[in-house]
Amino acid sequence: MASPILYSSPLSGNCYKVRLFAALINVPLNVIDVDLAGAEHKEAWFTALNPWQQVPVLKSGSTVIWDSQAILVYLAELHGQNAWWPQDPVRRAKVVEWLSVSVNEIQHGPADARLVQKFGYPLSHAAAVVASQRTLGVIEHHLTTHKWLAGDEGPTLAECAAYPYLALAPEGEISLDEYPALQAWLRRVEALPGYIPLDG
Amino acid sequence: MASPILYSSPLSGNCYKVRLFAALINVPLNVIDVDLAGAEHKEAWFTALNPWQQVPVLKSGSTVIWDSQAILVYLAELHGQNAWWPQDPVRRAKVVEWLSVSVNEIQHGPADARLVQKFGYPLSHAAAVVASQRTLGVIEHHLTTHKWLAGDEGPTLAECAAYPYLALAPEGEISLDEYPALQAWLRRVEALPGYIPLDG
Repeated sequence: MASPILYSSPLSGNCYKVRLFAALINVPLNVIDVDLAGAEHKEAWFTALNPWQQVPVLKSGSTVIWDSQAILVYLAELHGQNAWWPQDPVRRAKVVEWLSVSVNEIQHGPADARLVQKFGYPLSHAAAVVASQRTLGVIEHHLTTHKWLAGDEGPTLAECAAYPYLALAPEGEISLDEYPALQAWLRRVEALPGYIPLDG
Repeated sequence: MASPILYSSPLSGNCYKVRLFAALINVPLNVIDVDLAGAEHKEAWFTALNPWQQVPVLKSGSTVIWDSQAILVYLAELHGQNAWWPQDPVRRAKVVEWLSVSVNEIQHGPADARLVQKFGYPLSHAAAVVASQRTLGVIEHHLTTHKWLAGDEGPTLAECAAYPYLALAPEGEISLDEYPALQAWLRRVEALPGYIPLDG
């Protein structure tokens, strides 16, 4: 069976979430870069795949999944990756908590700050800094007593969803200096077998 | 076994997501209202339950789950509600797509507009209106060809996550007049056995 296509962009943290997880579980993807600068993601063929006109999109035969969190869940379910997507209801819910944090508090904190600083998006960097400080503070406190986001048993999809934009925070001029537990967690993710960096 | 406690607030759409799903699957909750006006959600005891200092929080014995989407998944898993949380990887991923939309595009569109208009939050109503128009346009287009958000087979957790702040959009001075397919979908949700309104 052909590898699924991942419509992606090299600098997108949301695409990196999926590429990272696929690397960690050793699942090959056929990565096709979408020309965001050329507005290819707003063309009709891409809008038909994802009405939100965003990467990443996973396409496998007639199956099309958009949203990076949904793609993570899909790949975990498809490949029976129960360590990354635990079957216990409490542990699974703990993963979903952090999928939501990745979509909201991390996106509208460090990820938005990076959009402004690196790509010139018309958002308020000051607002993103304030949001980032709250977000990073809560995560720092959590990681002071937990080895992994969704519990101590091991890394889960929560790591794949949260790591990219936390690791990339300095690109948005969000310093991680005051968050040693978070930094130690970044290093733990980077030590996982199969780990790839953003440009890997 | 005692019913789980739901720390809640009567006017919160996020809490309503959980109360609605519990009503639809006939699972009793022990709803305890948190005094948000009195900043009870910022007290130490509540922060220990949810470091983000937000309702809802579900507590069942020593299990504590925050984030409304995570609570929906937890209750579906715990009660084997496979119609609402399909086991097929593609259908499940389609539900997660809409959990993410509920946390991001719906929250930072109609829900933010309501926070400004109804509760005086210091956010930009103009920005929330622009975001809402994009969000509602995509959803309208989707529901023109789909009976339910995550497919045509039946309602899922996607409905429980997305319905509250879409139904409440007019409280944020976001008109739904131009979105007939969305309005028809609201009526389908309201016709489900067990449905309760926000104040139900």
